[in-house]
Amino acid sequence: MNDSYLNFVNSPFGARLARSLGLPKPEVLRRYRADRPEFDGLIAIGAGREPHLLDALANLVASVGMTSVAHESAGLWVPLANRHDLMTGRFEAAEPGSQGKLAALLFDASGIEDSSQLEPLHDFFHDTLRSLGKCGRIVVLGRPPEACENPRQWTAQRALEGLVRSLGKEARRGITANLVYVEKGAEHGIEATLRFFLSPRSAYVSGQVVRIGVPASTGTGAGTAALPPFDWKQPLAGRRAVVTGAARGIGASIAGVLAEQGAHVIGIDIPSAREALDSTMRRLNGTALAFDIAAPEAPAQIAAALDEQGVDIVVHNAGITKDKTIAKMTDAAWQSVIDINLSAQERIDDALLAAGILRDGGRIIGVSSISGIAGNLGQTNYATSKAGVIGRVQSMAPHLRARGITINAVAPGFIETQMTAKIPLTIREAGRRMNSMSQGGQPVDVAQTIAWLAHPGSAGVSGQIVRVCGQSLIGA
Amino acid sequence: MNDSYLNFVNSPFGARLARSLGLPKPEVLRRYRADRPEFDGLIAIGAGREPHLLDALANLVASVGMTSVAHESAGLWVPLANRHDLMTGRFEAAEPGSQGKLAALLFDASGIEDSSQLEPLHDFFHDTLRSLGKCGRIVVLGRPPEACENPRQWTAQRALEGLVRSLGKEARRGITANLVYVEKGAEHGIEATLRFFLSPRSAYVSGQVVRIGVPASTGTGAGTAALPPFDWKQPLAGRRAVVTGAARGIGASIAGVLAEQGAHVIGIDIPSAREALDSTMRRLNGTALAFDIAAPEAPAQIAAALDEQGVDIVVHNAGITKDKTIAKMTDAAWQSVIDINLSAQERIDDALLAAGILRDGGRIIGVSSISGIAGNLGQTNYATSKAGVIGRVQSMAPHLRARGITINAVAPGFIETQMTAKIPLTIREAGRRMNSMSQGGQPVDVAQTIAWLAHPGSAGVSGQIVRVCGQSLIGA
Repeated sequence: MNDSYLNFVNSPFGARLARSLGLPKPEVLRRYRADRPEFDGLIAIGAGREPHLLDALANLVASVGMTSVAHESAGLWVPLANRHDLMTGRFEAAEPGSQGKLAALLFDASGIEDSSQLEPLHDFFHDTLRSLGKCGRIVVLGRPPEACENPRQWTAQRALEGLVRSLGKEARRGITANLVYVEKGAEHGIEATLRFFLSPRSAYVSGQVVRIGVPASTGTGAGTAALPPFDWKQPLAGRRAVVTGAARGIGASIAGVLAEQGAHVIGIDIPSAREALDSTMRRLNGTALAFDIAAPEAPAQIAAALDEQGVDIVVHNAGITKDKTIAKMTDAAWQSVIDINLSAQERIDDALLAAGILRDGGRIIGVSSISGIAGNLGQTNYATSKAGVIGRVQSMAPHLRARGITINAVAPGFIETQMTAKIPLTIREAGRRMNSMSQGGQPVDVAQTIAWLAHPGSAGVSGQIVRVCGQSLIGA
Repeated sequence: MNDSYLNFVNSPFGARLARSLGLPKPEVLRRYRADRPEFDGLIAIGAGREPHLLDALANLVASVGMTSVAHESAGLWVPLANRHDLMTGRFEAAEPGSQGKLAALLFDASGIEDSSQLEPLHDFFHDTLRSLGKCGRIVVLGRPPEACENPRQWTAQRALEGLVRSLGKEARRGITANLVYVEKGAEHGIEATLRFFLSPRSAYVSGQVVRIGVPASTGTGAGTAALPPFDWKQPLAGRRAVVTGAARGIGASIAGVLAEQGAHVIGIDIPSAREALDSTMRRLNGTALAFDIAAPEAPAQIAAALDEQGVDIVVHNAGITKDKTIAKMTDAAWQSVIDINLSAQERIDDALLAAGILRDGGRIIGVSSISGIAGNLGQTNYATSKAGVIGRVQSMAPHLRARGITINAVAPGFIETQMTAKIPLTIREAGRRMNSMSQGGQPVDVAQTIAWLAHPGSAGVSGQIVRVCGQSLIGA
């Protein structure tokens, strides 16, 4: 739970020692705190040819109350920002050696239609990256490649991924870099996602690619997605959220963040964790339900318990590990991991969906894992179950579209928990440092990512797997 | 070019020293040699419920002349193998401590329709993995998740990926593990791909997922893909193959393997490499064309040079790096890398396709990179170009389908070349060892993978990116 090295190298003496020895100095990540402004500072705006998203970005910048400067690649920004009453001006590079003064770099690449038009991306990041401050944010916006009209455009849009992932690895200093593909017609559904990626809430999410589509309920191509009304300060107010495995650890953190954002949380955990579950739920004014989710009768029991009031958000967080190489793995260890981590979720979702207990416009959020993406030694059972969660998300998303229900998953990397605290030191250190943040994440980082996916403004985000891994080196 | 550690720990003294110090001992990989049997030894066959591919596998085993044993999960195999005159019997586990005696493990998971049916996979690999010999082969066969009829089946098929990637990380000893998804109706188009994954030709390809579809020209769902006639010993006989950057290194190796398999190779390289190109092409009885592929007139010149006889295979191997962090990267370094590695390929393909010079049934093969998948520090330009190559493959595949042309790319990881030999020792060692083979690959590993994609029997393989990386840890 405690990264002593991170704390040490960020003390005055430790920082001096690390510098003189050339040791890595992971940044203390800025995380969301209710007592500090969530959005603050200066955004630099860049753009490729014929950017389609500047209007939406101007609305966003006005909405979060940040100020902006226009890079020379985004000449259109200045009149637009003036029209929106945003204080704005031209970007000027910081003096060499002076501290970065920008909070975020936003580039609108949505109009790029050919690989020969990628140059403004170089110009923008070449000019601005050194002016980006600690824990700054990089977001590149494009069009989903697979929705592009011709191969040249698809290719150029797909190329952005190589750039953004490289920027994430170069930037360091707690800076995140993410790529958001916005479908045509979804321009006005980007705010919840952009807020997340600009906020300290996304401290440990980097190197990710997210697609925003047009939600089914808003009609085809109307251009203005009519989102249900909500308050940015309490977006989940009035919503009921089920969280499995909620007694402790990451599950308790998820429950906490959802409650903070206004949701009534129904925490589920196994009967043996009853006491911890009760105490967590009491703290959050939530409801505790002690069920073994893998029991054959559990789906019906859970459905019955939720039937009267229904639910809006289901977070499948409960999961177990039983690690062994496959030659030594018992049949029981294989089966229980597959059943609890994967099959039980399928049964519960099916029960809730069939009975209409999960309401239209709802959210299902699974928890996959880097192991499910990349495989892992000693985790054939766990990796199979977590790869299955990815399949679950991808297969269900089109089915649930008509009802306005989204389904997504987070895939945590190295998160500091009681579980990882038991890993032997050298292996733990390797796991902790092999990512662009040079440190493990916190349970709250997973929880905040889930809260973004649960947000009423995330109606256009479905079928996606978002890693919470600090851009771990490890992948498939 | 030379991995001294690999050589040392595989010498009698080095092996003893490594054992006593607990150092890793990478296996000397078995690679294809014309003077040794390509297929040899015993295959263990396993299966889930209602396997659909056993007939096709029986044909394959008979065709390559291997022998097989049936695991208890594949009871149907024995009568089938007897009918095909394959020597067969029941699988029996090797004595603990005795050397593995199996050459390959093949599991048919195509009939699995629900996550609750995954158990036979555990049973099979639990029983057999320790009996698999050095440089053995694991292939799991399934159905493409996205083509599955219902979410449960999609989920279960998608789960296989977590298992296979974990097996690749557990098996070590030069063993590869790959997952082949076979579309319904493509059962009889699997031989070229399965031969590749069972052969020493795929020595450095592990942890990969490949899809085999029904080629357009064979009609829809007829079930028997009528492939053009070819000889398994000289599959590219009578075919003409263009290889860019063919003078040296990986390009020369690609040209060599394609020529070995019967192709007439037309090697292209820049005028300054004319001498090396001439000498390489003379050795292969090929044709040398000195062109700067990035020159505006190059596509027309190349098209003119090839016009009379046409071509069947185009390999876009030429590429450059100009590494610098983006803040220090000149505009010229950005532009030249994007142009040579990506835009030039687009222009050349368009010229060859528009004029019909690339014949129907042809093959386009690009070279991407792990950097294009994962991004890399100091390679924003290179990673952008190589991510673009992925977009090129994915966007062009559906367009080219009607003409029976496939387009795919390889994505090399750490390959031992003159370029990697210049990397400082400690970084080179990290790059070399961070994969399931604990070593770098050879140029011939890339070349053999390209030859498989160029194979007339690979008509059902299109739109795919296959990493040649020894299952590198590094990914997206």
